[in-house]
Amino acid sequence: MTATSGLLLSGQYLLTMDEERSLIEDGALLVAGDSILALGTRKELSSRFPQAEELHSPHGLIMPGLINVHTHAAMSLFRGLADDLPLMQWLSEYIFPVEATLTAEMVHTGTLLSLCEMIRSGTTSFCDMYLFAGAVAEAVEESGMRAWLGEAIYDFPSPSYGELENGLALCQELTDRYREHPLIEMTAVAHAVYTCAPSLLVRVADMARRENLCLAIHLAENEEEDKTCRERYGLSPVQHLEQLGVLGPNLIAAHCVMLDEEEIRLLAQRGVKVAHCPQSNMKLGSGIAPIDTMLAAGVSVGLGTDGSASNNTVDMFAEMNCMVKIHKARRRDPLPISAQQALHCATLGGATVLGAEQSIGSLAVGKKADCIVVDLDQPHLTPLYHPVSHLVYAVKGSDVVHSMVNGRLLMQDRKLLTLDENAILEEANTIAAAIAKRQPS
Amino acid sequence: MTATSGLLLSGQYLLTMDEERSLIEDGALLVAGDSILALGTRKELSSRFPQAEELHSPHGLIMPGLINVHTHAAMSLFRGLADDLPLMQWLSEYIFPVEATLTAEMVHTGTLLSLCEMIRSGTTSFCDMYLFAGAVAEAVEESGMRAWLGEAIYDFPSPSYGELENGLALCQELTDRYREHPLIEMTAVAHAVYTCAPSLLVRVADMARRENLCLAIHLAENEEEDKTCRERYGLSPVQHLEQLGVLGPNLIAAHCVMLDEEEIRLLAQRGVKVAHCPQSNMKLGSGIAPIDTMLAAGVSVGLGTDGSASNNTVDMFAEMNCMVKIHKARRRDPLPISAQQALHCATLGGATVLGAEQSIGSLAVGKKADCIVVDLDQPHLTPLYHPVSHLVYAVKGSDVVHSMVNGRLLMQDRKLLTLDENAILEEANTIAAAIAKRQPS
Repeated sequence: MTATSGLLLSGQYLLTMDEERSLIEDGALLVAGDSILALGTRKELSSRFPQAEELHSPHGLIMPGLINVHTHAAMSLFRGLADDLPLMQWLSEYIFPVEATLTAEMVHTGTLLSLCEMIRSGTTSFCDMYLFAGAVAEAVEESGMRAWLGEAIYDFPSPSYGELENGLALCQELTDRYREHPLIEMTAVAHAVYTCAPSLLVRVADMARRENLCLAIHLAENEEEDKTCRERYGLSPVQHLEQLGVLGPNLIAAHCVMLDEEEIRLLAQRGVKVAHCPQSNMKLGSGIAPIDTMLAAGVSVGLGTDGSASNNTVDMFAEMNCMVKIHKARRRDPLPISAQQALHCATLGGATVLGAEQSIGSLAVGKKADCIVVDLDQPHLTPLYHPVSHLVYAVKGSDVVHSMVNGRLLMQDRKLLTLDENAILEEANTIAAAIAKRQPS
Repeated sequence: MTATSGLLLSGQYLLTMDEERSLIEDGALLVAGDSILALGTRKELSSRFPQAEELHSPHGLIMPGLINVHTHAAMSLFRGLADDLPLMQWLSEYIFPVEATLTAEMVHTGTLLSLCEMIRSGTTSFCDMYLFAGAVAEAVEESGMRAWLGEAIYDFPSPSYGELENGLALCQELTDRYREHPLIEMTAVAHAVYTCAPSLLVRVADMARRENLCLAIHLAENEEEDKTCRERYGLSPVQHLEQLGVLGPNLIAAHCVMLDEEEIRLLAQRGVKVAHCPQSNMKLGSGIAPIDTMLAAGVSVGLGTDGSASNNTVDMFAEMNCMVKIHKARRRDPLPISAQQALHCATLGGATVLGAEQSIGSLAVGKKADCIVVDLDQPHLTPLYHPVSHLVYAVKGSDVVHSMVNGRLLMQDRKLLTLDENAILEEANTIAAAIAKRQPS
């Protein structure tokens, strides 16, 4: 591919996920530089752009790359370390002890490991919240993925930055370093209402406003958090943030399981964005977030996998599949969330959560070329009546064959082009062997 | 492979799922004819059986094939035809009209399509309930899969056999035909309490007892069924079957969402087996079956995908993944079902549901050689602390590389050996094109 002639991506279908949700048979898009220059049928684009190199997938469906709005990528190192345990036992006996020994190198490797999995399963953007965010950013740069990254801030010392003031300084430094980066945007992260004092919540929120950053937080995740917050402050987690002036359109609230209808109206009114993580909420026994009510109230909802320690994968197709079904089970009704709504949350809805709906989340002329190609020629995708149904109810992450971010191919024919997968798996296994030795027997 | 020297299957791990749930590192099993002749480490078996041909998977986990205890394989033809609709509208506007035009050829093709998907995703036995069971059996014979098959019987005329008496005669004929078959066992099927009059339920149950067959039924699937049954008979579906003398150890009751604790005790007391179909129950808005209570009460539980029209795949790894999480969400507690329990339900538990725990469901000397090999060398399965956790929380159906049933390889290196996949997909697409033309717009 040359920058002047462009790359023509063509396939059996092109699904735009734009407002008309156009589905073009024998569709194609022309990528020039980092952007989409044209969309249409393969025939039309071939004749308009005869010089373009073509990557044709006869059984392929081209669609926007998936957007994972809440994860902790490096926690892939703890995948399956311990499951089926009460939250506090899981955290205190397994997760916190290994996190206390974390190093930047471990986070770098763990993030690369998640990046391999994310690219393979169709994610082209993700929003990460973890420790050693500088190491996360380096891994992301190596991969060519698009990401929103933040260093988690809380009251107690961190294995990453030590004392709180260093953490705030680190956020500022990373924000300055990545301000003009084409693929990486920093976020401010207040870990949660139960780990951040009110004054810290206000400080982080102020920094986010001053620097024009998204502000990510875990919010109303489970009964325990709700109870603790009410005991400490006499308010629910949402009311507590409202009183502190933290609720606003730049806030990305992950989980939101424990909300009542009034709180949902408040989130809608304040323009707060919600990161729905259905599988993590199930696995940790947190419950089922009232997402259908939020969507009906006009809240912007994106979809997230959470970290691989509580999921245990970062496959957004599996997450959509779970999302569309879990609310039907909760309501004993097949209607609350449709396949189209789940797919929206994983694409353009996710872009809106990140404030990036002008540049990603759907395929349109002028938008960034972030897209994936799904191979439809498989028994579990046969027959095909409605592509959107298949994308949500039947496609697996392993059906993705090509992935492109910002006009650059990150995977072609299921082969990763930017990362050395074997070396990453080997490094991750070496780190895991050391972790395993320190586990309670 | 020759019958005398046998085939040595070896890999990084061998998980037996026997009572000790042994996990053998660098494990191997020797297959001779249709059975397992020996189990142990690769080193030990290589020296005991130097003449055996070897199929070695350096990153492979060898385990019992998965057992799908409730499906309607041929409904793969209706995969994604219509979703996100109220049950009665879905059935009356979409499913019933196409089922009215079913032919034996369509069922044959649809079953082959599901067989491709089942073999690819690690299923080695399944229990099917549908129309044209003779055509289902022919497809199963072509594939080399192991199956329990039944013709659905109900009060009204069937597109398959016409009047009821023909249906009962067909059951008898198929039962006689397959009595000595090594891989196929017929079952008696009473469709449900709302589609079968009490006298018919009793007749089918009598036939099952006389012919020593499993008796399959949909039971207590949703609120509507419960309500209808109480209105007609003044009894819940379970109480109704108890009064008719139908509850017994040969009964396989699919769904069992609407049970109270007393009914659960009754099922345990009568030795009734339960086919849990969590994803179908979610997708159709039926609810969440109280499986943790059933397991605690000693009820034998297997796992089923239901048909691809209400799931929309037949991937048993996805079903285990859903099962282990959905009960945690329902109880707001991470404990109710463990990964080990979900894996048991999908293997030896499923075998027990089918009355076949002496021959399949775990890997042991003398048992039938029904096993699969999962490729662990992948980002989403790295690192590996506990194989059982990965099998339930992280493995996808697409990670299965080899599949063997009754000592015969049905898939090697992800290539199907007994079925012509391309031809089957083409036939299924032709049938689907005709179905699509007749759909309401």
